[in-house]
Amino acid sequence: MTWVTDDNVALLTDLYELTMAASYHAHGMNDQATFDLFVRQLPQQRKFLISCGIEQALDYLDHLHFNNDAISYLRSLGMFEEGFLRYLAGLEFTGEVRAVPEGEAVFDGEPILSVTAPLIEAQIVETFLLNCIMFETMIASKAARVNIAARGRRFVDFSLRRDQGADAGLRAARASFIGGAAASSNVLAGKVFGIPVNGTMAHSYVMAFEDEVKAFRCFLRDFPKDAVLLIDTFDVEEGARSAAQVANELASEGVTLSGVRIDSGDLATLTFSVRKILDESGLGQVQIVLSGDLDEYRIEALIEEGVPVDAFGVGTQMGTSGDAPSLGGAYKLVEDVHGPKIKLSTGKATLPGRKQVYRVSGGRGYAHDVIALEDEASPGGLPLLQQVMAGGRRCGEREQLAAVQRRCSNTLASLPEGLRSLDSSAEVYPVRHSPKLEGLIRRMQSEAG
Amino acid sequence: MTWVTDDNVALLTDLYELTMAASYHAHGMNDQATFDLFVRQLPQQRKFLISCGIEQALDYLDHLHFNNDAISYLRSLGMFEEGFLRYLAGLEFTGEVRAVPEGEAVFDGEPILSVTAPLIEAQIVETFLLNCIMFETMIASKAARVNIAARGRRFVDFSLRRDQGADAGLRAARASFIGGAAASSNVLAGKVFGIPVNGTMAHSYVMAFEDEVKAFRCFLRDFPKDAVLLIDTFDVEEGARSAAQVANELASEGVTLSGVRIDSGDLATLTFSVRKILDESGLGQVQIVLSGDLDEYRIEALIEEGVPVDAFGVGTQMGTSGDAPSLGGAYKLVEDVHGPKIKLSTGKATLPGRKQVYRVSGGRGYAHDVIALEDEASPGGLPLLQQVMAGGRRCGEREQLAAVQRRCSNTLASLPEGLRSLDSSAEVYPVRHSPKLEGLIRRMQSEAG
Repeated sequence: MTWVTDDNVALLTDLYELTMAASYHAHGMNDQATFDLFVRQLPQQRKFLISCGIEQALDYLDHLHFNNDAISYLRSLGMFEEGFLRYLAGLEFTGEVRAVPEGEAVFDGEPILSVTAPLIEAQIVETFLLNCIMFETMIASKAARVNIAARGRRFVDFSLRRDQGADAGLRAARASFIGGAAASSNVLAGKVFGIPVNGTMAHSYVMAFEDEVKAFRCFLRDFPKDAVLLIDTFDVEEGARSAAQVANELASEGVTLSGVRIDSGDLATLTFSVRKILDESGLGQVQIVLSGDLDEYRIEALIEEGVPVDAFGVGTQMGTSGDAPSLGGAYKLVEDVHGPKIKLSTGKATLPGRKQVYRVSGGRGYAHDVIALEDEASPGGLPLLQQVMAGGRRCGEREQLAAVQRRCSNTLASLPEGLRSLDSSAEVYPVRHSPKLEGLIRRMQSEAG
Repeated sequence: MTWVTDDNVALLTDLYELTMAASYHAHGMNDQATFDLFVRQLPQQRKFLISCGIEQALDYLDHLHFNNDAISYLRSLGMFEEGFLRYLAGLEFTGEVRAVPEGEAVFDGEPILSVTAPLIEAQIVETFLLNCIMFETMIASKAARVNIAARGRRFVDFSLRRDQGADAGLRAARASFIGGAAASSNVLAGKVFGIPVNGTMAHSYVMAFEDEVKAFRCFLRDFPKDAVLLIDTFDVEEGARSAAQVANELASEGVTLSGVRIDSGDLATLTFSVRKILDESGLGQVQIVLSGDLDEYRIEALIEEGVPVDAFGVGTQMGTSGDAPSLGGAYKLVEDVHGPKIKLSTGKATLPGRKQVYRVSGGRGYAHDVIALEDEASPGGLPLLQQVMAGGRRCGEREQLAAVQRRCSNTLASLPEGLRSLDSSAEVYPVRHSPKLEGLIRRMQSEAG
């Protein structure tokens, strides 16, 4: 079947990127321009986002090319001049990219990534950059919220079957790991990214045997160290007793039951009962894993009830960010050879000029951010945008995923307490404009009329 | 960068599929088994779903193989016996698949796809089948709702930048075309699926020129037949006047303005003003395209207000199905060599046995469906599940996408009127169980406890 790969991804773009490019080409408009990628307004249910997807964006820019197949298809549309098609056939990305490192918190209006390149190059990469960065940022942000809600308990990405297609499956595992997941059920993500893989068993496994005890006995013998038994195929408490019986029966063979999983029913009540059954069977070390439509809200509620849970599997909500299933990402022209640019559409205004974002700490964590023009003196704080590509080539080494996960963990620990609350009515992180940026905006607004 | 392709997609699975398979292999459990894929309960905001993603599922089953790289990675996990890895290295899918044709409406609990194969083969394909069929079904269903709301007006898939990754972008274009979209902005989808591609221009294009009039003049000359000008970069009415001025100025050059697009602001009010400006400039044939966070609800409201709109671009909501961003798809063992199987978990019961779904019409459209056992006499109506794969090979030809789109259009026209309403409180389509299926469920429930 047809998959998106390095060979065809150049065409994974909105047609208008190419018609605009053709027009720029026809008019010799290909001077350097700067575009910022940012989220204008965070969804109501989000008080921070976690930068993610930058790696994939750089890989894309690094390999961008239109092959013969692509050019032939574009020719068949009958819309493009041969001169433009020839130009496209030789096109490579030669620009500069600055980005907020993956795993770092970002807020409303702050550039997550900024591209400076000849206008045509900068324009045609828009669609893919939005697609990849917004999706991964959405998932990493969701995972970070689950991370906060789980208060140190392990959680595992179970989203693959709910993810939106194959590529989303692979990227969701990566993004949720960055947000704090301990592992993923996704085997390919394990292979590609080195993420620990994790799994239990399905109800169909239990149903494929004559009874639950036989199923548990087989599985425990086959996986004598890491088995997690699913105990809700028929009756959860009965399932817990069967698991305990089999674990004790096979202990003499050197088999250790690692955990049990409950995937349905009243999880709070059942977990208390199951903990009791396990403890009374001398299996105090056996962990209880919960799953079944969990998200950060349900996890927080379970923990607040004191439910004796050890780990969570988070599927659908991890993969779809159900309470905020899209981010309104924008990729806007902010400067060209004629100077800063501003857009004034109702509710869709942009911040003009090449910018830097400074994060100012105070007390025990982050205090506020300042969006400033790139060429003004630092208002204090740490600059977030780092140069990651120059002349179309990556700067520096690829980061280890574990290092990115640690960065995210540090950034979460530095957020003001109110931002770590799931309550959507609580405080908003202060993002200020530097006086010079504010002055530029006012001047351009008044010039525009 | 690493993409999912035919070569590695076998690993795009939950680890537990492989641990269960290893256990089945160790115990010689590999007799024929039947699994049904279905949505247990439709989201509250959906009264029907449109079957989609079957083609991709069949392609996957057709090509399924674990290559040397995959086997080496699995070996490195230290969980699997060599005998099982050898078995996996030689594995192909050899089973039978029945499915509801793409484009056809399906309802709660009805199998969309049913797999009969040796147990291990049937089990390990679960994760991918859910991932691909549920996503595409969700998008086709969303598009079908937009289709109904648009009441014959064109709508175009603008979702690519909001889709969840690259593969989702490609599949969302296909699924939304099946649901009734006239075109997609996604160029690769045009190439791969032959979907018409469509596009206008971005705000950045207008901003790259000295002023709007110059931008419009260039673009119209460059695309003298199909240009749609984006008129909301600065002020919409001013933009409409500029578009009209340029269209009339260039008419003598044989240039025809096709349309204008409004992407922000109060769309209803602005569309009335813009229509007036265009008409007064003798441009009655110039179409108005609306976009900007549209979905079926907003489209219905605009049309009910009598807004003179000709076409819609639907992006974020098409690609994420924001009001119902996931489907609770299940893939369950329903029969094996020992007979029908049932699962009794709270709220997650399954319908036992190999089944067929019959659609009974009456009056002017569909009246109700009956889920029956496969071997019972037809209760009347048309059987929905068709055999699409036998012995691991596809049956019949690939369908043309246009034919699938027509099937969807016919199925939508046959839905009871209440089901075509966006009001989530309205009628529910009747899905009945045949007496023989109901008898089997009761017998198995009473045997279980």
